Amino acid sequence: MGLTEIRNVCEVSLNIPAEKQEKLHNRWHPDIPFAGTIKNGETVKIECVDWTGGQIGNNNSADDMKNVDLTRIHYLSGPFEIETAEPGDVLLVEIMDVQPHDKHPWGFTGIFDKNNGGGFLDEIYPTAAKAIWDFEGIYCSSRHIPHVKFPGLIHPGILGCAPSAEVLATWNKREGELIAANKLDRIVAQPPEPENVHAGSASEDIKAKVGREGARTIPGRPEHGGNCDIKNLSRGSKVYLPVHVKGAKFSVGDLHFSQGDGEISFCGAIEMSGIVTINFKVMKNGIADLGMKSPIYLPGPVEPHYGPGRYLTFEGFSVDEHGKQHYMDVTVAYRQTILRCIEYLRRFGYSDYQVYLLLSCAPVQGHVAGIVDIPNACTTLGLPMDIFDFDISPTGPAKKLDMGSCAFETGVKEGKVTSGGANSEHSFGGGLTFKEKTNVVENLKEKVMGS
Amino acid sequence: MGLTEIRNVCEVSLNIPAEKQEKLHNRWHPDIPFAGTIKNGETVKIECVDWTGGQIGNNNSADDMKNVDLTRIHYLSGPFEIETAEPGDVLLVEIMDVQPHDKHPWGFTGIFDKNNGGGFLDEIYPTAAKAIWDFEGIYCSSRHIPHVKFPGLIHPGILGCAPSAEVLATWNKREGELIAANKLDRIVAQPPEPENVHAGSASEDIKAKVGREGARTIPGRPEHGGNCDIKNLSRGSKVYLPVHVKGAKFSVGDLHFSQGDGEISFCGAIEMSGIVTINFKVMKNGIADLGMKSPIYLPGPVEPHYGPGRYLTFEGFSVDEHGKQHYMDVTVAYRQTILRCIEYLRRFGYSDYQVYLLLSCAPVQGHVAGIVDIPNACTTLGLPMDIFDFDISPTGPAKKLDMGSCAFETGVKEGKVTSGGANSEHSFGGGLTFKEKTNVVENLKEKVMGS
Amino acid sequence: MGLTEIRNVCEVSLNIPAEKQEKLHNRWHPDIPFAGTIKNGETVKIECVDWTGGQIGNNNSADDMKNVDLTRIHYLSGPFEIETAEPGDVLLVEIMDVQPHDKHPWGFTGIFDKNNGGGFLDEIYPTAAKAIWDFEGIYCSSRHIPHVKFPGLIHPGILGCAPSAEVLATWNKREGELIAANKLDRIVAQPPEPENVHAGSASEDIKAKVGREGARTIPGRPEHGGNCDIKNLSRGSKVYLPVHVKGAKFSVGDLHFSQGDGEISFCGAIEMSGIVTINFKVMKNGIADLGMKSPIYLPGPVEPHYGPGRYLTFEGFSVDEHGKQHYMDVTVAYRQTILRCIEYLRRFGYSDYQVYLLLSCAPVQGHVAGIVDIPNACTTLGLPMDIFDFDISPTGPAKKLDMGSCAFETGVKEGKVTSGGANSEHSFGGGLTFKEKTNVVENLKEKVMGS
Amino acid sequence: MGLTEIRNVCEVSLNIPAEKQEKLHNRWHPDIPFAGTIKNGETVKIECVDWTGGQIGNNNSADDMKNVDLTRIHYLSGPFEIETAEPGDVLLVEIMDVQPHDKHPWGFTGIFDKNNGGGFLDEIYPTAAKAIWDFEGIYCSSRHIPHVKFPGLIHPGILGCAPSAEVLATWNKREGELIAANKLDRIVAQPPEPENVHAGSASEDIKAKVGREGARTIPGRPEHGGNCDIKNLSRGSKVYLPVHVKGAKFSVGDLHFSQGDGEISFCGAIEMSGIVTINFKVMKNGIADLGMKSPIYLPGPVEPHYGPGRYLTFEGFSVDEHGKQHYMDVTVAYRQTILRCIEYLRRFGYSDYQVYLLLSCAPVQGHVAGIVDIPNACTTLGLPMDIFDFDISPTGPAKKLDMGSCAFETGVKEGKVTSGGANSEHSFGGGLTFKEKTNVVENLKEKVMGS
Repeated sequence: MGLTEIRNVCEVSLNIPAEKQEKLHNRWHPDIPFAGTIKNGETVKIECVDWTGGQIGNNNSADDMKNVDLTRIHYLSGPFEIETAEPGDVLLVEIMDVQPHDKHPWGFTGIFDKNNGGGFLDEIYPTAAKAIWDFEGIYCSSRHIPHVKFPGLIHPGILGCAPSAEVLATWNKREGELIAANKLDRIVAQPPEPENVHAGSASEDIKAKVGREGARTIPGRPEHGGNCDIKNLSRGSKVYLPVHVKGAKFSVGDLHFSQGDGEISFCGAIEMSGIVTINFKVMKNGIADLGMKSPIYLPGPVEPHYGPGRYLTFEGFSVDEHGKQHYMDVTVAYRQTILRCIEYLRRFGYSDYQVYLLLSCAPVQGHVAGIVDIPNACTTLGLPMDIFDFDISPTGPAKKLDMGSCAFETGVKEGKVTSGGANSEHSFGGGLTFKEKTNVVENLKEKVMGS
Repeated sequence: MGLTEIRNVCEVSLNIPAEKQEKLHNRWHPDIPFAGTIKNGETVKIECVDWTGGQIGNNNSADDMKNVDLTRIHYLSGPFEIETAEPGDVLLVEIMDVQPHDKHPWGFTGIFDKNNGGGFLDEIYPTAAKAIWDFEGIYCSSRHIPHVKFPGLIHPGILGCAPSAEVLATWNKREGELIAANKLDRIVAQPPEPENVHAGSASEDIKAKVGREGARTIPGRPEHGGNCDIKNLSRGSKVYLPVHVKGAKFSVGDLHFSQGDGEISFCGAIEMSGIVTINFKVMKNGIADLGMKSPIYLPGPVEPHYGPGRYLTFEGFSVDEHGKQHYMDVTVAYRQTILRCIEYLRRFGYSDYQVYLLLSCAPVQGHVAGIVDIPNACTTLGLPMDIFDFDISPTGPAKKLDMGSCAFETGVKEGKVTSGGANSEHSFGGGLTFKEKTNVVENLKEKVMGS
Repeated sequence: MGLTEIRNVCEVSLNIPAEKQEKLHNRWHPDIPFAGTIKNGETVKIECVDWTGGQIGNNNSADDMKNVDLTRIHYLSGPFEIETAEPGDVLLVEIMDVQPHDKHPWGFTGIFDKNNGGGFLDEIYPTAAKAIWDFEGIYCSSRHIPHVKFPGLIHPGILGCAPSAEVLATWNKREGELIAANKLDRIVAQPPEPENVHAGSASEDIKAKVGREGARTIPGRPEHGGNCDIKNLSRGSKVYLPVHVKGAKFSVGDLHFSQGDGEISFCGAIEMSGIVTINFKVMKNGIADLGMKSPIYLPGPVEPHYGPGRYLTFEGFSVDEHGKQHYMDVTVAYRQTILRCIEYLRRFGYSDYQVYLLLSCAPVQGHVAGIVDIPNACTTLGLPMDIFDFDISPTGPAKKLDMGSCAFETGVKEGKVTSGGANSEHSFGGGLTFKEKTNVVENLKEKVMGS
Repeated sequence: MGLTEIRNVCEVSLNIPAEKQEKLHNRWHPDIPFAGTIKNGETVKIECVDWTGGQIGNNNSADDMKNVDLTRIHYLSGPFEIETAEPGDVLLVEIMDVQPHDKHPWGFTGIFDKNNGGGFLDEIYPTAAKAIWDFEGIYCSSRHIPHVKFPGLIHPGILGCAPSAEVLATWNKREGELIAANKLDRIVAQPPEPENVHAGSASEDIKAKVGREGARTIPGRPEHGGNCDIKNLSRGSKVYLPVHVKGAKFSVGDLHFSQGDGEISFCGAIEMSGIVTINFKVMKNGIADLGMKSPIYLPGPVEPHYGPGRYLTFEGFSVDEHGKQHYMDVTVAYRQTILRCIEYLRRFGYSDYQVYLLLSCAPVQGHVAGIVDIPNACTTLGLPMDIFDFDISPTGPAKKLDMGSCAFETGVKEGKVTSGGANSEHSFGGGLTFKEKTNVVENLKEKVMGS
């Protein structure tokens, strides 16, 4: 009789708090109980909440963004048992579809406060901000960033199988050493965090253990993938994931309607709740057969495409905004590339914060161009000109349009913020003093070192 | 009557030494005399020698690669006067075509010795190696890396206008400070180098000045572009270049038949001599009108395209091969991504050196995926499966083919080299001892600091 | 507060007969009452039944296909009033999305009996047949045509605004003349047909009038578009439709999960019920401003794409299968092109009927190549090789696989049918004798001529 | 040592008359002597003259176009012996490159006089006209059709292996029957033509035989390909050609810098002389192994691509410009589609003749959309908007630009011609009266029937 309906293995509610839902969890740990079972070869639907678990509202204030509780993220759906999967296998995950919830056709892009989450350009743009995006079929648009519309390259930001106890120990040791050695005036990694831990249907004992040991979901990690935030891992993609525990314990979440390469503002994709449809196949002995240390994938055939000549492309080098020469630093180069694009679009009337938000979520192409011409790494950023409803091509002086404003925290005015930008001083920067920040960093060191 | 022939403003000889040819030069300096004049709006042909000026031969030994004289590179064609161009303008350079010389249908990809040039993976692959590529129309193939064939995404690695004296001073100061502060056991930048300076038709006085002050051509630089090595800046592209001196003093060279994102082995593109056809247009006051600090470009519409689903994509994270966690380091992540690809292709019988060469020159896509998920930057490398004449898709154990060998220096055997690789010790590494290397670095510091 | 839900202006039921639902209709006529009102600028959802109104079942028999009642097709949703639209305007219809019904994830491709509908190759393949397709997200696959899977280039086969009385009269006159002049042994056009007419919520009088005068929905027509069956008019497309009556009276239906260029088996797309999301904008005076006689459109940016080198392309000429030379007949050439592809795929074990079905619905590219080289028109058919899970590239003899069978009418066996094919006699052909068929044609002539 | 130069097996002169050059010929016949020998597996260069053999000049008069001698076309390079090829084999021809002659960077697109060659729209546009195109690298532009520039999808219009005597006899019989049965007021096919026959280095006897029997090169034919005029058979394509005689006797010519689907004005591509680089491989027993009746091909990976959303697409149906309904006639539909595009572009100031020329040679996509919805075939024409340097998108009334004029025959003025167009009477039409034309047609019949 053929297919009549695809099984939904994870219904979530957008009204019940995420921490009350047993098929969600927010740490990586092998002891989190299975949330369901999926056959080898089966295609199922899995619903997901947005990565914050509903902390951000469809409104015009970024207060929620400023005050987001990062101990609660990311709420993932799972972990699911994939029948027959065992350590050493590869789980072939084919993403058949990703859709927003029909009754929830909107998402958000945010800039975190420099002192609560931060982002790639937080030294220049330290203030929390937000844009709400409306979804109409394949397209999205925002009242906070007018004159753009683009189709989503929709994808899950996070997918992966649970670490084994050994893999988890490696992570905690490795990241703990980084925290312990940190001399920067910023948080460089997040150790296990008992506060607000959610371990699905786990008993209190297991939950406490997950709180003590469970890896945070923020970074992607080589051994299993996780929060890779790869924008092209979209509909039709096949991802090959190493299996570390019996049954695979596959989890997925952090759905993005769209994202630019780098997801630069950290909460930079268009974050949403929604439904992912996945086919699962187990490749026995796949890790050895494929010589695999980290996930690989094949993108799907249905990405938006504009033609190469429609990407206005910016170049950046590892010389920072203060004129300092860095040695082969791609991170510095990519930051400069983005600043060049901000400066360019600013001419049309957008505020820097609007562009920072836009480049985080629109399908911009960030390439490593040259990485060997000492001392300058060179990166490029390709901006699809067709997402704008006016002409942004480089033909002369720009005509400023009325671009309104993105959302800010209560009391912050766009004018004040944009008087900042890449070239000027910043007279604001949120709540924590330098002293307080230093204390936060010191606290993390202590946690790690067990002092 | 229409067009009958396109003017060739720079005939070069492949038989006369590059340093004897007056329309070539190998430093950036505003005082190098014009090599010719081009009208605003004109399309011309410009011939170029390969970047080494003919140091590398079409043979099966990498001795020439090992002993390459880097003080001589890059030989550029120019500088050309573009009529009406003045500081503050933008020079719109449209690349109408790039072709190899008809009588010279081959090019080379090289790995430099770790102690003479090095490359992105030189700590793992320290030995010089080489592959020769034959060109048949749009396609290239190599006896040194069998079972691959691909169309060139042909482009000039270097193009730019001369720096003004002020811009040049900025470069020398900025890079000098990096050299002076260097604590790494490697050369981090190249200061001005009088040895083998070539200043075109300059008088001896000017030539000596260029030797003392002229910027090396190795790095791309934000103020003018230069050696950006952007693989997509190919046929049909429009590049917008800031003009710093009267007449623009435009130079071009370092032609590549093909290159992968990053050009990872440093001499990593398929280097060739050839002819570039360019249309020049001056945009008066363009720097201010476009708000430009660094070049921007629009790619052309004729890139090879395989469909997104034909790119096998590898993921890498900022955890290095020793298991050390780095903080948001895209450079480390990209290195890991490449190692994952080397490990994958090694299974089919290629040596690591062959793959290192291949990934340097084939049109691989290197993307910045996630750059905010502390502490791990994530990058991806997309490998077009259709360049292989056998199936490399991830379907199970690989069948090894006879892949021959790339070229090595006299006395080095492939077997010995490949017993190295990403996972093992390296018992070789070329001539300089650690002490000697340290001395080289110290010498550069002294040069810069004038001591 | 932003978008919370998109208005659904046309809920349909898959359980209630189509002819009982007031927002459906199956003829083009200006007097069919509005099914609802949509604002200029609004985005709405419109549900549609499949074009047959549910006559075809998800089973393994083509009896329903053989006996389909064509007087009932196509059931369209509408007509909708678009506020402010008037004759002379252009209605800009942006297709924001097309989706199958969530609870109905399947569709069908059919071959009609030669004597009841027929198709492009009915002289060679006269027997009814069917394939059922299962939808899993963006992909479809069929138990009746194994070893293929492809993403849908999902689209509405029909959309258009109602004709004015004058336009309708033109249609009836023009097509009536063709029917009257017909000397072929087949039906060449369908005149108005009172039987099974459905005029939405019309009164009995209006319904009778629509039955007498209403244009059949089968052909697309230059004045309004209608059943164009353009496969690329998919998600993201903008269609510009002439408006002939006040309020536009826009209708849509005949949703296709996928279709090949030509939709060759007539019921050739993957027919489905589903939901289309559309944004409407009125361009005042658009017909004159755009100099428009027929609709134009801009495709969306998200078509599946495989890279040009992944299309195995067949050539056909206007020499028919009997060796007869036709003069510049693209129709003959396209038929030959398809036969070449059938012969090619037959080698892998598919029956001709399976391939005929497949080429009707898979995203094959049918191009007019040369149309001036007397006496031969040349057309090409590009077949994407990546929809097969085995290698179909032209490398030598083909290995036959077990391909099962598509569905046939009761009593017909695959073996018998495939012993037919393009090169042999056909001992079957369904119910009507030649005499009977002649009678059908004559009856139509009488209807038109009012005799 | 590797490749140093690719062997040129066919040097042609642009100064010596084509009929004096022994490596050219202008009929298909198995007895034309070999022009050279190529190894199985070899890559060679083959020079070609333009299809007319130099009859058309780089000037501003279409007198040469009006008076073109069609008995002389097409001059092909060859036939070449491919070693080891025998009847029943398939010749795999990989087009490594196509380039115009370096010293001849221009080509032409022409409209023939209705009475001497004609074209797809000759009933509406009967007057000879011409546009000269200048080549600058990958791009072309024309003083006769301003404001457009596009990259060439460069290709040979003709390639194929010689027919055997049996295949040739089939052609002559088949086409002779068409000529004999012709009741149209136009030439429907060209029988063998002794006048101006060129049989390469053949003896006088053989040459006379070729004149009597040799097939004209105008039509493509299913058995060998020939003049297919497939625009996508460009650089990187692999064509699979049936072999009918020992040594294959491969010929190639009719090089096109660019062409639109259909090549509608007959001399519609950008015709040029140039050089094609080809690799040849023999597939033994390929015809049977591939089940091949007509050539197939795989396009190359380097076509220009603009993104689907950049093609403004016109729709046409099989209702002709007089309002007459045709039955499923794709040829009529395609003609209407083109007229819709002419009407659209006319609004910007182009004359109809300019657009007719442009649509013949620019890379427009002509698709068979629907071919089963009786009585209307539907075709589409996709026009890449990015080839224009002004915005042609459908946003409202068009602003007319000064578009100059294409070239006409002496005495014809643009104004007079464009007052014609698709909607009005034509007071001109060239030299032959209807009576004379009838005589031409009758003469051909007599030739064929041997009366």
